[in-house]
Amino acid sequence: MRQPLPQAVKDFIAAARVCRIATVRRNGEPHVISVCPVFDGESTVYVDIGPDYVTAKNIEAERRVTVLIDEYSEDWNELKGVVLRCGAEPVSGAEQDAAWERIRLKFPQYKGIGWEPRLTLALRVHKWRQYGVADGDTAT
Amino acid sequence: MRQPLPQAVKDFIAAARVCRIATVRRNGEPHVISVCPVFDGESTVYVDIGPDYVTAKNIEAERRVTVLIDEYSEDWNELKGVVLRCGAEPVSGAEQDAAWERIRLKFPQYKGIGWEPRLTLALRVHKWRQYGVADGDTAT
Repeated sequence: MRQPLPQAVKDFIAAARVCRIATVRRNGEPHVISVCPVFDGESTVYVDIGPDYVTAKNIEAERRVTVLIDEYSEDWNELKGVVLRCGAEPVSGAEQDAAWERIRLKFPQYKGIGWEPRLTLALRVHKWRQYGVADGDTAT
Repeated sequence: MRQPLPQAVKDFIAAARVCRIATVRRNGEPHVISVCPVFDGESTVYVDIGPDYVTAKNIEAERRVTVLIDEYSEDWNELKGVVLRCGAEPVSGAEQDAAWERIRLKFPQYKGIGWEPRLTLALRVHKWRQYGVADGDTAT
């Protein structure tokens, strides 16, 4: 990243219960899903998805993904959002274990439905934009 | 559409206060924004965006967009979502006027901030998928 994320943005990402991830299909059509994210506190978001998801197929050919974390409010002065432009990378070993420690802690629901690690993706942020989270609208 | 939207899905779309719209940049990177949608009750979603938005530039080259309308719940049995694969088309004249009647009625916030019609897009649904809104998971 050319400029590190402000602390308020890091806190917003870390607290997010859900995010939307946009990818591109092999035929060039955009795709978007809703997923529960965890954050390493610095510059990587982790999500775990089914290996048969369209998103999983998409990133085999095009690793660039865009993550939107936003909160809607009926008071439009209170709209908040962070857009993260990332490179997606499947992880295994120690990095996957560390991601799953965060996932289990933040989302006990995974345990409730008995889900074990599937395809765990590191989404490494290289550019970002925010509105309503830190002072002013800022972007890199 | 090969199969019309079930009534429960139409109602869900019509009631949505916010949706996420994925597009593709000219360089092939995915993009996603949060927008307030209205629905014609059949097969077209309308949104109004700034002509300088990345989304506006993107659809000049690639008209395919994917709209995600979803509600997150901490009870994962209650997750709901509708994915609409659409063709985006700027509208003017009577169709834009009709869209803006819906927009003004549903989102009085537009009036509050004095926004007039900018780039009004018709997002014409040709394929869809839903989970948690109508019976079972269904898709076309």
